[in-house]
Amino acid sequence: MSGGPGTASAAGSARGTAADDANERAVARLTGSRPVLETVARAGDVVRGLTDRTILVSGPPMAWDRYTGGQRRAIIGGALYEGLAGDEAEAEALLADGFLTVRPSHDHATVGSLTGVCTASMPVLVVHDQASGRRAFCRMNEGADRASLTFGVWDDGVEARLRHVSDIVSPALAEVLERMGGLAVGPIVRRALTMGDDLHSRHKAAGALFRAEVLDAVLDLSRQGVTRRYRALAGYLRSAEYLFLHIVMAAAKAAADSASHLAGSSLVTAMNLNEKEFGLRVSGLGDRWLTAPLPPVATLRGRLYDGWSTDDLAYVGGESLITETIGLGGMAAAAAMPLQDHSAGSPPEMLRTTERMYRITLREHPDYRIPALAYRGVPCGIDVRRVAETGVVPAIHLGATLRDGGHAGAVLFRPPLEPFERAVELLSNEPTLTPARPGDPL
Amino acid sequence: MSGGPGTASAAGSARGTAADDANERAVARLTGSRPVLETVARAGDVVRGLTDRTILVSGPPMAWDRYTGGQRRAIIGGALYEGLAGDEAEAEALLADGFLTVRPSHDHATVGSLTGVCTASMPVLVVHDQASGRRAFCRMNEGADRASLTFGVWDDGVEARLRHVSDIVSPALAEVLERMGGLAVGPIVRRALTMGDDLHSRHKAAGALFRAEVLDAVLDLSRQGVTRRYRALAGYLRSAEYLFLHIVMAAAKAAADSASHLAGSSLVTAMNLNEKEFGLRVSGLGDRWLTAPLPPVATLRGRLYDGWSTDDLAYVGGESLITETIGLGGMAAAAAMPLQDHSAGSPPEMLRTTERMYRITLREHPDYRIPALAYRGVPCGIDVRRVAETGVVPAIHLGATLRDGGHAGAVLFRPPLEPFERAVELLSNEPTLTPARPGDPL
Repeated sequence: MSGGPGTASAAGSARGTAADDANERAVARLTGSRPVLETVARAGDVVRGLTDRTILVSGPPMAWDRYTGGQRRAIIGGALYEGLAGDEAEAEALLADGFLTVRPSHDHATVGSLTGVCTASMPVLVVHDQASGRRAFCRMNEGADRASLTFGVWDDGVEARLRHVSDIVSPALAEVLERMGGLAVGPIVRRALTMGDDLHSRHKAAGALFRAEVLDAVLDLSRQGVTRRYRALAGYLRSAEYLFLHIVMAAAKAAADSASHLAGSSLVTAMNLNEKEFGLRVSGLGDRWLTAPLPPVATLRGRLYDGWSTDDLAYVGGESLITETIGLGGMAAAAAMPLQDHSAGSPPEMLRTTERMYRITLREHPDYRIPALAYRGVPCGIDVRRVAETGVVPAIHLGATLRDGGHAGAVLFRPPLEPFERAVELLSNEPTLTPARPGDPL
Repeated sequence: MSGGPGTASAAGSARGTAADDANERAVARLTGSRPVLETVARAGDVVRGLTDRTILVSGPPMAWDRYTGGQRRAIIGGALYEGLAGDEAEAEALLADGFLTVRPSHDHATVGSLTGVCTASMPVLVVHDQASGRRAFCRMNEGADRASLTFGVWDDGVEARLRHVSDIVSPALAEVLERMGGLAVGPIVRRALTMGDDLHSRHKAAGALFRAEVLDAVLDLSRQGVTRRYRALAGYLRSAEYLFLHIVMAAAKAAADSASHLAGSSLVTAMNLNEKEFGLRVSGLGDRWLTAPLPPVATLRGRLYDGWSTDDLAYVGGESLITETIGLGGMAAAAAMPLQDHSAGSPPEMLRTTERMYRITLREHPDYRIPALAYRGVPCGIDVRRVAETGVVPAIHLGATLRDGGHAGAVLFRPPLEPFERAVELLSNEPTLTPARPGDPL
């Protein structure tokens, strides 16, 4: 089942063959990635181009005045957290006149969950792809509270939790990871897929496996006594259910970057959203974003907390769908039967969701496999040509955010088809152009 | 779906109605059990009737001279471990003349994995059913090595590992558990069933969850420094994959005992095997064992290590099938797709296996649920009348043992039908006799 697109359409066309070759190389980089979680570091120290006045956000680039909801609140919160402004009004002014710069995470080898706000002093998880040499980053998870900068809330509680994670938890985790010599991400993903996780909306198995490994290492470090910050780390690990999502996001970003900028390749290298638009990047089109307006939140289906309905939701951005880029999340719905309601489907429907994804992907992942499909590999490497031909869009598991901020549950998100179609057109117009390549790996 | 057997067969018969009532009470005790792992203790200190010259084993009672294989080796090993004999010949002689007594575990509120050998100085896991007040026991798991007393091997390595677990690991675990105030078993079972475990042949999720909880508590205990025995405990937890099986076995035994000795009830309260025979107990028949010869090992199907075939296997006893008594293991095959080869079936076959088990059980468990079956409760409470009527025997996931001892893999075991049929006859002959009741709960 591995290999390029259908031989019938590829036959007799030099362009088609070149594209197949490019896709073959691109998807081999996705599946060959060997991500290692190295450490947690101050973002400004490791993320290239992240100045003290830069605020990273999720989504394709958008003018400041178009941010009106949760992502705007989080950007302002980030400015205040960083001490760049004394109050919200000053932050607004500095953002409006460009003294503070809002930048898309993806251009900085970074991905962000939901609002995706990350500033220089915040801690990021550092994942190194040992196959490509690339590093990618994702901000440390804020913990279990539903009110968070991630979910578009800024208040004293959010700030206090951010500082706790930044000042106490992250240095402790960094020390443990460095002592461990880093932690291989792939084996945990592989095992978690056999334990009911999709690695996007559900991380219960990966989280338990990660927690046990880290606590074991903490014990090893603590022969002379367990310090307060290690106990704080243990407390954090008890409840930070989506920490491993952020690790997988960074791992997926490193893999996707290694597969990007291959001339002619129709492989999807990024999907994301800001408050208003869905964004798509394709390997052969380099850093170009193809965008389209987001579907109305009323069209989302899933499982929301506390009796909320989709009317209560709003988009606040999101880049956790980088996990779908490597075959996880909604692509691997069949692995995660416990998500059957969140994922808007019964068990048979979830099996069909993943089976449908094989029609739009280039390869079955050799290591990441789904027990319920007799250990078939996850559908990996979305091909915009196949999406355009079939009309089947990627199935995406997405966290849901309340209009006023806060975690509301999980939904199945179907991106608009149009950017995929446009990507195919663009590829056919300029198939031999080698896109500009970004800087060397860090 | 809850309730007694089919109304058609029950209608118009006072005996039938009384039996239904008895079954209703019996299965309510199974599903209402609230097991808590309290501690690890020296068997002789907590297991009633376990004298210094008693050796507990798995299976229905059998004369000493009929033990010829792995279970015999393990019994002799137990005698030597306990210092009851200087060498094998002396142990044989003391066993032959009855100075040393071989006793069935089940009569001592204890269950044993495979050979099931347990002597007074060995550590047992102590599980307390908070609903019934009963306690039940299972020997501490020996760890990951395939050669073990459990799997019918006795040599210096086995002895050294047993002493390490007894002298260092168990006291450390006991201290942690007591400090935690015990650990509720049910919530881990419930979660693990959503994470690919059947809680008999597969415990990867339960083990990870348990390990994380225990390590967290160890950190809390270790503010002044992590001692050697805590590091030994951490090392043990890293590899003792089937520890949680032994915990679930004790939990299931406590629940089954609380449902036993109810006049007229056709609920299965124990299934086990020794080297030669399958044994069955039914609530309304009290402590009576109904036995039948074991099927030839060549008829087993499953997944064996290292190219072994079923010809290399031998029965050495086993009581881990107490987990099937409460709806886990093969009964919950549909929850554990990663066992698809061990369980001798494809994913659809595993779904059908569990679906078939609803035909012979009294209730769907209200808490233990299977995501792949849209969260239907596991089939709980095997009714010998339904087994006899349908000819469907319980599906049992069983560890496989080499003829010369050692862990060989896992298989699907189908017990003989005849003891179930005989139980129905006996129940119809003496439905109103209240069986003798064993002693009060400890």
